[in-house]
Amino acid sequence: MARLRFHISMSLDGFVAGPNQTEENPLGEGGEQLHEWVIGLEAWRRAHGLDGGEVNESTEVVEESLENIGATVMGRNMFGGEGPWGEDPWDGWWGDDPPFHTPVFIVTHHAREPVVKQGGTTFTFVTDGIQSALEQAREAAGGKDVALAGGANVAQQYLQAGLIDEMQLHVVPVLLGAGARLFDNLADAKVELECTSVIEAPGVTHLTYRVSEVS
Amino acid sequence: MARLRFHISMSLDGFVAGPNQTEENPLGEGGEQLHEWVIGLEAWRRAHGLDGGEVNESTEVVEESLENIGATVMGRNMFGGEGPWGEDPWDGWWGDDPPFHTPVFIVTHHAREPVVKQGGTTFTFVTDGIQSALEQAREAAGGKDVALAGGANVAQQYLQAGLIDEMQLHVVPVLLGAGARLFDNLADAKVELECTSVIEAPGVTHLTYRVSEVS
Repeated sequence: MARLRFHISMSLDGFVAGPNQTEENPLGEGGEQLHEWVIGLEAWRRAHGLDGGEVNESTEVVEESLENIGATVMGRNMFGGEGPWGEDPWDGWWGDDPPFHTPVFIVTHHAREPVVKQGGTTFTFVTDGIQSALEQAREAAGGKDVALAGGANVAQQYLQAGLIDEMQLHVVPVLLGAGARLFDNLADAKVELECTSVIEAPGVTHLTYRVSEVS
Repeated sequence: MARLRFHISMSLDGFVAGPNQTEENPLGEGGEQLHEWVIGLEAWRRAHGLDGGEVNESTEVVEESLENIGATVMGRNMFGGEGPWGEDPWDGWWGDDPPFHTPVFIVTHHAREPVVKQGGTTFTFVTDGIQSALEQAREAAGGKDVALAGGANVAQQYLQAGLIDEMQLHVVPVLLGAGARLFDNLADAKVELECTSVIEAPGVTHLTYRVSEVS
């Protein structure tokens, strides 16, 4: 069955976004530091239709994270906005040609018609929970894997439910001190982790874990 | 000047002890999992006067962590007990021959006469703060480095104050879900981190950082 793979940049103190996230600053204060390791990479720029960039130990990590992904699930906060959609709903942070290039299933409390973007990205809004979003994503993925794009809240729900198969943390050596903590609300998570890969790269350490549900 | 070196085992979700620490269970619920990687090692057993044990990728890490240490600082919670010492004060969790083999300076609110143990360990109780404890430890270390033994609270104080020079996290692939979080109360920490070493070993990943104060 298609695996659910979760790859995310995290500060050493465990935050995946800084404090005070806004529409203008979706990464929160200081949050841009979490992504400095990737945005200059040739592999990342190529995936976003840009030329040039650096090749280093992170290249293979980024290439592998993009490989064999057939669909994406994410939380509403990651798509953008909050509360009911309103008359003229915002299309989120991702622009006309979002970087997903797959069907994307968004876990939200608020129903909305699908949104079709360029480059193969469609946004489908799922109101009946994480399990349903994952099932729809698996079906859409056509035998490929499903990427969990975040953010922290929906990632915690998937982790707690034992539904994540692979978790890769891009650990960035900064202390944000506050923000969205990835590993929170997990007191009842019954999962086993096994470290399968450790890669040191400029400005980041990539830790990959196999995640399995404790039966 | 003698460096302050901090080496600690931490769960992937950031806890250095489990919830509900007691005199009988100083590591808290599930906390013993954080130390499984080390207690079977020949290098650790030798340092504790025991024979036998395993040699693996963690061996050099443990040996280096014990090298060139001339004194130790720790928090009261790490020594044992809480509140005023009373008439017949408890000598803490460490037994007659504690594993430190150096002068140990304990940051506490409660004054107490020094306690001399076997094997070169003396416990000195410091009531005027982390800076004073570090100065006394540096003086006692005779040119060697000072080890910060924990726990989370006093480590946060030293980190926040920019006084730690080297931090090594032994990251264990478990989620404790609750307990003593290492990286907390650090919103005002002005430190820069640089990852200097990454070592993958059975049941643990060792991440070492150079810590410097942002001027």
